Formats: sequence, structure tokens, C-alpha cells
Amino acid sequence: MSIIAVGSLAFDSIKTPVGKKDRVLGGSLTHFSNAAYFLSRPKLIGVVGNDFTEKEWEFIRSKSEALDGVEVLLEEKSFFWEGYYSEDFDTAHTVKTELNAFAKFAPRLPENYKAKGDILFLANIDPVIQKQVALQCGHCHLKVLDTMNFWIQNAPDALAEAFDAVDAIVINEGEAFLLTGEKSILKAVEKLLKPHFQFIILKRGSNGVMVFGKDFIVSLPAYPVRKVIDPTGAGDSFAGAFMSYLDAKKVKKINREVVKKAAAYGTVVASFAIEDFGVDGINKAAKADIESRFREFEKIASF
Amino acid sequence: MSIIAVGSLAFDSIKTPVGKKDRVLGGSLTHFSNAAYFLSRPKLIGVVGNDFTEKEWEFIRSKSEALDGVEVLLEEKSFFWEGYYSEDFDTAHTVKTELNAFAKFAPRLPENYKAKGDILFLANIDPVIQKQVALQCGHCHLKVLDTMNFWIQNAPDALAEAFDAVDAIVINEGEAFLLTGEKSILKAVEKLLKPHFQFIILKRGSNGVMVFGKDFIVSLPAYPVRKVIDPTGAGDSFAGAFMSYLDAKKVKKINREVVKKAAAYGTVVASFAIEDFGVDGINKAAKADIESRFREFEKIASF
Repeated sequence: MSIIAVGSLAFDSIKTPVGKKDRVLGGSLTHFSNAAYFLSRPKLIGVVGNDFTEKEWEFIRSKSEALDGVEVLLEEKSFFWEGYYSEDFDTAHTVKTELNAFAKFAPRLPENYKAKGDILFLANIDPVIQKQVALQCGHCHLKVLDTMNFWIQNAPDALAEAFDAVDAIVINEGEAFLLTGEKSILKAVEKLLKPHFQFIILKRGSNGVMVFGKDFIVSLPAYPVRKVIDPTGAGDSFAGAFMSYLDAKKVKKINREVVKKAAAYGTVVASFAIEDFGVDGINKAAKADIESRFREFEKIASF
Repeated sequence: MSIIAVGSLAFDSIKTPVGKKDRVLGGSLTHFSNAAYFLSRPKLIGVVGNDFTEKEWEFIRSKSEALDGVEVLLEEKSFFWEGYYSEDFDTAHTVKTELNAFAKFAPRLPENYKAKGDILFLANIDPVIQKQVALQCGHCHLKVLDTMNFWIQNAPDALAEAFDAVDAIVINEGEAFLLTGEKSILKAVEKLLKPHFQFIILKRGSNGVMVFGKDFIVSLPAYPVRKVIDPTGAGDSFAGAFMSYLDAKKVKKINREVVKKAAAYGTVVASFAIEDFGVDGINKAAKADIESRFREFEKIASF
């Protein structure tokens, strides 16, 4: 078993209240892999341009099991995002988005990605593409989709079709409210939780995370981080670590206990993500650091 | 051992997005006792006017161990608050406050309140009075103070003196930011956590609660309530249940484990408070309901 992950590989220029970095390696796929790495290196599906140097290849190679699904478009540049965070770190403000190679993203599933029992993670991309990939992944026993405001507002029908093709979704609290028109978490989730869903992950930023199954709720606070540097990629890092836990434990049947452990593990890994720019926070953490912080998180939040 | 609680006994007229009630029994002392009741009925110190009928007396008598510290001012009416909550239930908007008898509140400690080892809880009142009572309670082994925006903005020096006279404080996240000028929880708490404090309780409304000791942090989410009716008194209910747990367990030394259990218990009892108007949510809960929800909360939030 392994994880197939589909998403963006990008360069980010990020300004936060405590600093600034130009063109650091980013993108949902990068952050997802970086966080999954400790328990389960995923097989990647993405696209890059001619500006992806050996340094970037080396990084994503080290964090993944296979790159056969990563296409190179030599006449394009890679996806580029420039943005900043205001003083509370809560909202990312976009200055510039250049889709570049990503505009031509037409993911295909390499033969060596077709092992039975894989987990599929569809990071936040066009729901039309999410659905296409999900339909190619009949062999996957768990298909999880992430989305964002842009698709909720501009492609609600395609998004609804993509929901029909997956087993679980990852969504921010604000996005869930936007999508359902509700202002209460439980009411929003009631509308979102389709009969075929195994779970919904509701990301709540600095307020933690909730996971809703058919017959259970899980709610965890965030790990209290002393110095936030850059929240970019925290959500994808949570998802990567969460999925890697399910994969490492060879989970076939989702239940509350495993979801709770996966969510706690995801919370801890994501807490490293925000302690430095781009991938550096998690990348410089050792497995022992994560285990030690997991035990600390248990002391803080498990009673 | 028992709890001495000082605060307001009031009538509240409350409008929320789901309904409206006129002149229900309220006030910090009422909510505190209502929540403490299941584990430790407190000795009350407060003041009421000529409009406090046998119905109200019967209620607070049933929830308390002693009322000798409750003064009656026959020429005054009781404290009255009128307010409403907007759609997210997060902020209470005041329409009218009539201090009435409360303006003449001069608490004194009856002789039968002077048992060694008592816990003192000073609900949100004038910090000058909080300090006066704290100084009368040398026999109390734990003195806890709650406050609010009004005193932070209008009586910061008196509040600082009151802080010096107690062992712990209860404060909202927003109030902690206001008081310290910080926007990060950990930085705010660092400024607030005086050397003589045993703990700080940081109330975060629907985002849960954190408790900070000298060498520990505790963080719990809120209990997910399906239908919020009226959040009035949730914070005082949390405090009442939290303190009652410490009292019932005869806690002499604060540590992480007991704080975590007390905070989880407080979270559960407070979740009943918001499910109906005024005191009704908790009042109609049986001890078995609380125990059952505590076990459910463990399943949701303890991993």
C-alpha cells in the first residue's frame, strides 16, 4: 500500500509579519509529501516547468516513493504564488498567481501507481481534474479530496461531481460555511456529510481540527506553537501526515480511534510546518522530534 | 472544605437568534453555583434587591451551602442586564445595565465562611472589591479571580492590585489580548502569568479553553453542541464546574492532570448551560447526564 497524491509543485514568495522569502519551494503536493514522509512516502502526480532545478528535484525525490506521474513542460515555468499574511497569520492574501505549467496540468496515472489498496489524495485543484483522477483510481480503497474558496465560488457543480467520486473531503471551517450557507459547524457538516463519505476533515487553523464520521465526531485543539513564522502549507502538511498515518497503520476501516490518532499526529506534524518558511519547518524536524512533540501534545490535550 | 463565591445575582432579559426571555434569573454567582452544584455547593456572597422573590431564593438556596453572605437591600431593585447575541452567538451586546443594589455591594465574610482550606472564587466585579474580599480570605488556600473588558479598560491599576491578591485568574482570550497588547496567546499569557499565580484559565468560547500553569499547558476544544440557545453564563458555569472539581477532589496542589480533568468537566457542564436560556440548561441536567456527556467528550477529544 502507498499514497497517490495529486497537486501542485510551485515556487512561493511569502511575506509574513516576521519575515520574507522569495521563490521557496511550495505547492500542495510538496507540503503534503514533506509531511507524509516520516511514515509513508507518496507517489506523486503533478507538473513542473523549466525552472525546476536539480535542487528541487532532489528535494521532492527524497520525500516521495515515485515521481513517474510528475510531468515536465519545458516551454513553461512552474506554478508561482506570491502572497502575504497580516498580523494574526490567519488569512493568506494573494499578491500574484501565475499558473504557468499548472494551466496545462492533465494528470495521468502511471502503470506503477496502480497497486491495489492505494490511498488517493487530491489536493486543492480544479474539481474537473479531481474527478477525472478519482475515476482512474478504482483500485484505491480511500479517495480524499481537498478544495478551496475559489472552486466553491466558481465551479460548484463540478465540485459536487468531484464529491460524488471520492470517499472523504478536507475543508476549512470558513469554506464549509461558504459552501453550505450555514454558520454553525454541526449544521454545515450535516449538509456536507454525504451518505458515501467515510469522513470529513474540518480544518480550523489555530483553533484545531475536527473530523466527522457517520457515527463519530473527533475534535482536537492546535498544538500551541511559541513562534509562528509562516503558515503556508500547514493544511496540506496536516493532510499529508494524517494520510500517512492511515497508510502506515494499513487502515482498511475508518473508525474513531484511528482517526483520532491520525488527527493528533497530523496536528503535531503541521505544528512544525508553521515554525519556519516553506518546507523548512518540517524538513529540519527529525522523526524523534515529532514523536517527542506527539507525547507533549498528549500531555496538553488528552485527558 | 468548600467554595466561597462572590459575584452578582441578577435578572437578565436575553434575546438570541433563536428566542427571547425576559427577566430570567442570572448573574455570575447564579451561573457559578448552578454549575458547581453537582460536586460542591458553594457559600455565596452577593447582594439582591426587593424584587428577589421566594422563587429566586429557593433556586439559589438549592444550589448553595450557605447564603449568609447574601445581603438584601429593600430600597433597591436587583441588578438587571438586558442584551442580545448576533447570529454567531459569539458576542453579547448590552442594551441596558441597571446596577441597582449591586452599586452598593459591600461584601463581608460571615463567620461561618471562615473554615480553613476554602477555595475563593471572585466573579467579574469591581477589582477594588475583589481585592478587599481576597484580603479577608487569608484562610483560603486557592483564590481565583475573573474579570472583563470593562475593568481592564477603566480600572487597570485596581485590577493589577487585585491580581496581586489572588493565586489564579480566569480571562477570555480577547480580554487577555486587550490587557497585554499582544495578539498571540502564548505571548499574552507569558505577560499575564505572574510568579505567584498557580494557573491562568483562558476561555476561548466555541474554540474551547486553555489552562496555563508554571510548567504546563492544557488545551481542550469545546464540546460540540448541536443547538445553541443562549450562551449567557457559559463562562461562569465553566468556572463553577472547574472549581467544584478541585474542591470535590480536595486538591491541595495544582498539577496538569487535575487541571485537565477539571477543565474537561467544566467544558461538559458549560455545554449544558448554552442549550437553554439562563440557568435552565444546567438545571434540568441530571448528574447522570453530565457523566454520560463527559464520557462522550472523552471519546471526541481524548486520544
